[in-house]
Amino acid sequence: MPENSAFLSRDDEVYSMSDEECRRLLATRTFGRVGVTSGGLPVILPVRYLYDESAITFRTGTGTKLRAAEQGDVLAFEVDAYDDETKTGWSVLVLGRASVLTTEHEHAGVPTLDPGDSQGPNNHYVRLFCELVTGRRIAPTIGG
Amino acid sequence: MPENSAFLSRDDEVYSMSDEECRRLLATRTFGRVGVTSGGLPVILPVRYLYDESAITFRTGTGTKLRAAEQGDVLAFEVDAYDDETKTGWSVLVLGRASVLTTEHEHAGVPTLDPGDSQGPNNHYVRLFCELVTGRRIAPTIGG
Repeated sequence: MPENSAFLSRDDEVYSMSDEECRRLLATRTFGRVGVTSGGLPVILPVRYLYDESAITFRTGTGTKLRAAEQGDVLAFEVDAYDDETKTGWSVLVLGRASVLTTEHEHAGVPTLDPGDSQGPNNHYVRLFCELVTGRRIAPTIGG
Repeated sequence: MPENSAFLSRDDEVYSMSDEECRRLLATRTFGRVGVTSGGLPVILPVRYLYDESAITFRTGTGTKLRAAEQGDVLAFEVDAYDDETKTGWSVLVLGRASVLTTEHEHAGVPTLDPGDSQGPNNHYVRLFCELVTGRRIAPTIGG
């Protein structure tokens, strides 16, 4: 049995966070994960993102995430932090409908984009409006 | 526009990792995320886990993850690392059918579990056999 199996005998306590606290934490990070149902199966894909005006924006190529956004699917988005030493951390989960930013929308909502972007392989922009935001703090129980 | 929006004008290059490399990385961590479809919506939930013998095992209470496991649903599981300074990282994605470990199975497969576990709020054990394992390294393009 590996040494790290000790976690199996510990109970983590989970505390909910306020909407305000969740949104504050969303703004402190730029790396998160998109959850999407693809072909009936759940998939989790890492993205770099921007949180601004209650929306998550990320770039993507022509794959699972773009297809989901084109269909206006509801996506999950998660950001977290965890300290293995103290066994404490937090996780924020966002649910929202995705949309593809057209050039017009980009210009309106994301004014500083470099026009050179359209040459790259990840030249699609997906925006996820943060409709449902929940979060939890993770802490080991006393003596855990 | 927040300062961190610079990421929007960068293309990340993504390199696939071998199955062997993915499994090696799975074994180096104990904190990951479960992806599950709940009521038709994707959800991402943080878990502490053990990777052993090609399976992910984690504890859970009586919620979304347990229901999915009881139904034998396919779950996604993701572990990653990302360095905001160097803009490099990796992500491993596992897909597999989940099952709930009964007491008998626990004794067979997870021999060192503390019997006191059954008193805690998270006294259910879910195992996810790693049927499909994929991974990607993330690196910024040159000049990105």
